[in-house]
Amino acid sequence: MAIAAQTPGSVIASVAYADGRRIGDVALDDISDVLDRADTFVWIGLYEPNEPLLRKMQEEFGLHDLAIEDALTAHQRPKVERYDNSLFVVMRTSQIEDPRPGKPCDVRYGEVHMFLGRNFIVTVRHGYATSFSQVRTRAEITPELLKQGPAFVLYTIIDFIVDQYFPIVDALGEELEALEQRVFLEAFSRRTTTQIYKLKRDLIALKRVVAPVIELSARLIRLDDEDLIPTQVRPYFRDVYDHALRINDMIDGVRDLLGTALEAHLSLISVSQNEDTRRLAAWAAIFAVPTAIAGIYGMNFDYMPELRWSLGYPLVWAVIVGLCLTLYVQFKRAKWL
Amino acid sequence: MAIAAQTPGSVIASVAYADGRRIGDVALDDISDVLDRADTFVWIGLYEPNEPLLRKMQEEFGLHDLAIEDALTAHQRPKVERYDNSLFVVMRTSQIEDPRPGKPCDVRYGEVHMFLGRNFIVTVRHGYATSFSQVRTRAEITPELLKQGPAFVLYTIIDFIVDQYFPIVDALGEELEALEQRVFLEAFSRRTTTQIYKLKRDLIALKRVVAPVIELSARLIRLDDEDLIPTQVRPYFRDVYDHALRINDMIDGVRDLLGTALEAHLSLISVSQNEDTRRLAAWAAIFAVPTAIAGIYGMNFDYMPELRWSLGYPLVWAVIVGLCLTLYVQFKRAKWL
Amino acid sequence: MAIAAQTPGSVIASVAYADGRRIGDVALDDISDVLDRADTFVWIGLYEPNEPLLRKMQEEFGLHDLAIEDALTAHQRPKVERYDNSLFVVMRTSQIEDPRPGKPCDVRYGEVHMFLGRNFIVTVRHGYATSFSQVRTRAEITPELLKQGPAFVLYTIIDFIVDQYFPIVDALGEELEALEQRVFLEAFSRRTTTQIYKLKRDLIALKRVVAPVIELSARLIRLDDEDLIPTQVRPYFRDVYDHALRINDMIDGVRDLLGTALEAHLSLISVSQNEDTRRLAAWAAIFAVPTAIAGIYGMNFDYMPELRWSLGYPLVWAVIVGLCLTLYVQFKRAKWL
Amino acid sequence: MAIAAQTPGSVIASVAYADGRRIGDVALDDISDVLDRADTFVWIGLYEPNEPLLRKMQEEFGLHDLAIEDALTAHQRPKVERYDNSLFVVMRTSQIEDPRPGKPCDVRYGEVHMFLGRNFIVTVRHGYATSFSQVRTRAEITPELLKQGPAFVLYTIIDFIVDQYFPIVDALGEELEALEQRVFLEAFSRRTTTQIYKLKRDLIALKRVVAPVIELSARLIRLDDEDLIPTQVRPYFRDVYDHALRINDMIDGVRDLLGTALEAHLSLISVSQNEDTRRLAAWAAIFAVPTAIAGIYGMNFDYMPELRWSLGYPLVWAVIVGLCLTLYVQFKRAKWL
Amino acid sequence: MAIAAQTPGSVIASVAYADGRRIGDVALDDISDVLDRADTFVWIGLYEPNEPLLRKMQEEFGLHDLAIEDALTAHQRPKVERYDNSLFVVMRTSQIEDPRPGKPCDVRYGEVHMFLGRNFIVTVRHGYATSFSQVRTRAEITPELLKQGPAFVLYTIIDFIVDQYFPIVDALGEELEALEQRVFLEAFSRRTTTQIYKLKRDLIALKRVVAPVIELSARLIRLDDEDLIPTQVRPYFRDVYDHALRINDMIDGVRDLLGTALEAHLSLISVSQNEDTRRLAAWAAIFAVPTAIAGIYGMNFDYMPELRWSLGYPLVWAVIVGLCLTLYVQFKRAKWL
Repeated sequence: MAIAAQTPGSVIASVAYADGRRIGDVALDDISDVLDRADTFVWIGLYEPNEPLLRKMQEEFGLHDLAIEDALTAHQRPKVERYDNSLFVVMRTSQIEDPRPGKPCDVRYGEVHMFLGRNFIVTVRHGYATSFSQVRTRAEITPELLKQGPAFVLYTIIDFIVDQYFPIVDALGEELEALEQRVFLEAFSRRTTTQIYKLKRDLIALKRVVAPVIELSARLIRLDDEDLIPTQVRPYFRDVYDHALRINDMIDGVRDLLGTALEAHLSLISVSQNEDTRRLAAWAAIFAVPTAIAGIYGMNFDYMPELRWSLGYPLVWAVIVGLCLTLYVQFKRAKWL
Repeated sequence: MAIAAQTPGSVIASVAYADGRRIGDVALDDISDVLDRADTFVWIGLYEPNEPLLRKMQEEFGLHDLAIEDALTAHQRPKVERYDNSLFVVMRTSQIEDPRPGKPCDVRYGEVHMFLGRNFIVTVRHGYATSFSQVRTRAEITPELLKQGPAFVLYTIIDFIVDQYFPIVDALGEELEALEQRVFLEAFSRRTTTQIYKLKRDLIALKRVVAPVIELSARLIRLDDEDLIPTQVRPYFRDVYDHALRINDMIDGVRDLLGTALEAHLSLISVSQNEDTRRLAAWAAIFAVPTAIAGIYGMNFDYMPELRWSLGYPLVWAVIVGLCLTLYVQFKRAKWL
Repeated sequence: MAIAAQTPGSVIASVAYADGRRIGDVALDDISDVLDRADTFVWIGLYEPNEPLLRKMQEEFGLHDLAIEDALTAHQRPKVERYDNSLFVVMRTSQIEDPRPGKPCDVRYGEVHMFLGRNFIVTVRHGYATSFSQVRTRAEITPELLKQGPAFVLYTIIDFIVDQYFPIVDALGEELEALEQRVFLEAFSRRTTTQIYKLKRDLIALKRVVAPVIELSARLIRLDDEDLIPTQVRPYFRDVYDHALRINDMIDGVRDLLGTALEAHLSLISVSQNEDTRRLAAWAAIFAVPTAIAGIYGMNFDYMPELRWSLGYPLVWAVIVGLCLTLYVQFKRAKWL
Repeated sequence: MAIAAQTPGSVIASVAYADGRRIGDVALDDISDVLDRADTFVWIGLYEPNEPLLRKMQEEFGLHDLAIEDALTAHQRPKVERYDNSLFVVMRTSQIEDPRPGKPCDVRYGEVHMFLGRNFIVTVRHGYATSFSQVRTRAEITPELLKQGPAFVLYTIIDFIVDQYFPIVDALGEELEALEQRVFLEAFSRRTTTQIYKLKRDLIALKRVVAPVIELSARLIRLDDEDLIPTQVRPYFRDVYDHALRINDMIDGVRDLLGTALEAHLSLISVSQNEDTRRLAAWAAIFAVPTAIAGIYGMNFDYMPELRWSLGYPLVWAVIVGLCLTLYVQFKRAKWL
Repeated sequence: MAIAAQTPGSVIASVAYADGRRIGDVALDDISDVLDRADTFVWIGLYEPNEPLLRKMQEEFGLHDLAIEDALTAHQRPKVERYDNSLFVVMRTSQIEDPRPGKPCDVRYGEVHMFLGRNFIVTVRHGYATSFSQVRTRAEITPELLKQGPAFVLYTIIDFIVDQYFPIVDALGEELEALEQRVFLEAFSRRTTTQIYKLKRDLIALKRVVAPVIELSARLIRLDDEDLIPTQVRPYFRDVYDHALRINDMIDGVRDLLGTALEAHLSLISVSQNEDTRRLAAWAAIFAVPTAIAGIYGMNFDYMPELRWSLGYPLVWAVIVGLCLTLYVQFKRAKWL
């Protein structure tokens, strides 16, 4: 991943597009010239910009103060804000850290802020947000759509981000399956409970990232500003909406099952406890037989005729072994042992 | 079932209807001629089509790019999308694999995508989706309704798919009843817990298939495009809506009961554990009597007058047996044994 | 009850009303004549009609095909459907089978379908639906309301059906009270858990019958067709709405309490288990005293001075009894015994 | 309280107000004369009226039949019904029976029905409903508001009733605190569980009384009939709305905490059970030591050299005491004892 | 904090602003003169005012009676009320008492009431509400926004209050993390359960303070009175709305996890109980071996050949030790010990 290479505060890209085709990079100072031309828009990509850089953007594109302040400090909730002549969109990006089969999945979240105007889009990445160079490539192969303006770029980015949620839900779903196996087949251990808890925590974190995207994309679909979101781009946001809904459903499904798995886990522990209590009772009963009988023939009464019999001792052995075996067989049959 | 016979990527049927009556098969290349005639529509059925075939459909009927992409990759959420001049409907089909009484029901899900226009309907089946030849027959016996156009075909298919959900809910309901019997009558076992979990998982899966159909049919009812859904066909979708609502209710009912069954299961295990603990205590108390008494008369004191009595030994036996019997009877009466 | 006497497929009643007063029975074939007169309507009551009879009705009153199909097969969800010139209303009737105090209540459900037009109402009963002869009497004593047309008959029937839900909720509430007594006063038993489960199942069944009536009556209130539901009749449906809401509330209340009762039941079992474990521990400790002491003086060492003392034996007895009593008293005081 | 003094079926008060000031009592037969004057309204208070009295009211003020029937039989859900020219409002009154600190609170509920017209308000009390004489006094001290007509009287009564809910929620909150103390500090007992259940039942009952008041007051605020609810009175109902919302919130808060308290209770019982099981295991282990050792030296082998040693017996004592002490100290340190 | 210094009933500040700049303090009696000037507004800060002071405010600014009554008695739910020409806003302030790492967080809540008019804002603080002097400073550094009038002051205060919720959620989140560690790593104790309960109570309290702010700010955004909330200030309330939503989400997240932590806690206690029961069973079985064997050779039969063998005694020792060791090793291997 190209993340490490990107220094915070830097301009990653500043590209101009005309009629759906890339016409080359623009220096930040030449942007206003470019924006004057018809059918032309610029896409500026920033990575953890410092305040002066963002203020420059604000001045250039007439962005709202509140949006700039939000973009400076990350940790926003995914949302769309509409200002006079621009949109401000916040989304959380995600990435599985070092994915390996069998390893509990470790997700890192980043944040992307996007300013969308009639002829510009500024994207600001924070933290664990993969480079958008693939997004750029993906958008540029369909010039007939890119011609619709920066709204299509916005769609491509959002779609890219949402697509990255799927492998995470899948990974969490696989963790659940691994847990199910442990719950139903293996022995009980603290580790299982701890992992159920961890998985639940991961699901809650993912849900908080995904759920607002449903509302966010619904608002983009309903937006009635032809300049910002042209009619032809609208169905694409409906597509995003469907994906967000589906991921949300999948999370709820895993969560629901996880709850049941926890209940089943508890229930199986109880069954097991019950079995152990019975087994304990059974062994105690078997061991009580020789102790009681031997105790009786260990008494010191003068007159205990059995003690004089020459077959007394073997008989007692026979009785003890016989009783113990009978109990053992009966308990075994009753599935107590 | 005719599923195995159908090769992916093939055209299953391509039929033209005029005035509600089948007028014969059409080659894909002749479709545009047919569509020019008034009161005529075509119904094209595909099974897991490859991209070129779908692209041909797109060209022929002017379908939207996003719908085509959805139709290529299955795994969509049930939904209706409206594009300029057509509807795109996704539903999940279902089928019980090898149904036998007493056997836990094993459900396979497939997917159907439908493109509906003023004078065409294209149906695309994926995975475990039964052949629609029965649907065709069912639709063709009411020419007066088929005259309404492809919307009635859409209804017939959706109705057919929804009707297939009923036996599944019934089968899951029967599984619940079998589980109830095990929970309340038989002994506890890991298997019961595992089956409760499996049933819950099946219910969640079915719910995710059925629940979106409620919204889907509601949107078809509200759709205000007389060309796509004629007024006379609208009540039929209300019928589908009612069925979806009813299946949804049934699933919720089974789920609710299942939750209570799980709680009852846990509660009964606890009761049982309690009984076993008491039983263990009771037997331990009974066995403690001979051990304690025999221990006392096994002591080696020089002066222990009882040891010299000739009736000492029988008396001790009598005391031991007497005490044990008394305890046994009392515990029996208190339902501890 | 007159249920047994009614043969399926039969016409129970066919009565004409003019200006709010009964003007006599009409043969099915004369209905069209009657319907021509102003201020006149007919009320036709059927019990499990066969298809030809229903088709005759369809023809006579111009009913919709889908409604007829619904009326043929029972098992519909309570609902209102509006067709061009008529309403189709489905409700579930209910009846307590052999009600006796102390006996768990056993509810049977039936179904009623009603077709309402400007000048007719057709009622179709299925299964355990009590005869509507009382409803007829009740409606006929207020001719000034009956004058409003068949909508008032519809109200009278719906009100009658909803009124029959009250005794059921009351009976289930009484069952809950009986259960509470068992949970808090009596011993634990499998029966209690089983009954909690049964009660929950009955509540879920009743809820599924009652809940849709809220929506159903709300839709009848909002209906803006003066011909079908005259303004003067509307407040009466608001009354039904309130009743349905109240029954629904009552069911939720019982359900909520039942859940808590189950939790309390589990909690009390745990308390009881805890007490039994402690009691077991206490008795084990008391019995361990004589066993340990007697064991020590049963050893065969040559030099054990106590064994030679003439007071040794009584002293050991005194020590054993003393220790056991002390433990017993202390455990009793700590409420362990 | 003046409740006992009021005989059912009686007219408690019948007062006329003009320009916001009380102008004196009116006989029921003179009401129509009074109502003719401008800026004049009457307030009639009834306590459990019989049917003739209510019918008289109906005739006098033109009340709707359904409202009269509701007022005859109590047990209505809190609601507002709007009829042609009048409002029918139902509320539940409440009162703590014999309130004393430390005593579980015992709440009695009554019912009030109110008919509000342009120039009249009829209040009907049922069961445990405190006299409204204080309400009268409270309303009469602000003639400038009373001038707005009977709607302000309605507000004063509703406000008075809602104010009586606050001490009940407070009392239930205090019960919860007392329970928390028992759960976390004292020993477990059946009584605690029983009281948690009782408190939950009381909360459910109160919730059913309070929750509909939110909707009720919201509807009064939205009511667009200037004659019945003048604009100046509207903010007052918003005040009632806020109070109802707050009481509802408080109930939910107590309920939520109660649920957690029950869970904590169960959890603590489990912890306690665990401790007892361990303690039992510990004592059993300690007692097993002398029994096993003494058993060994109680064997009757000819050749057991230790038995001949003169220090054998004291040595065994030392070993037994030493081992028991070691175990005791170790278990103590591990917090098992 | 300057709280202690402020005496209840006192006027904390009374400042006039013109064109976004502070023009100096005003005596309460000169306010009307100031209000006559264009582009001028006053900000009056009160701390627990007595009735005469509030009545003076009411007279000066024409405030509504109900708002004044609410402001007199604290304990209101957060809300916005709109009266003819002014807004009444209630919010709860919060403050962590003596925050120290590792110490459970102890939150105190206060209340702020605000009256907003076209050219005035009156703020009334109750209880634990930090001084607004910082708010004043913060507002005065942006004269271009303060020029918008008192609505911007309202925003600054609300924003300040909402910002104080964040450290509390963070503190509670840290408490949860500390609890998680105790639950999963340390031993079980009553303290853990008690703290889980306390944390839940704190979360419920905070939720009741934060949740209404969402609705409150949404209503401020929607308010269509340009005089009270100018269009330029509106986006700022959207910012507050987002913050409230985020805090609410965070609370729900902590709550959800806390519930799972409690379940995991219970589950781990059960696992632990199970382990202890098994360990108890294992030790009982090991100790039963010497007791049973020694008992047998303690019997007094005349004919017991083993007793005569010179190797009998060491052999028995060997058997006992051997059996015990075997059991011990096997139990160890099965993880029972």
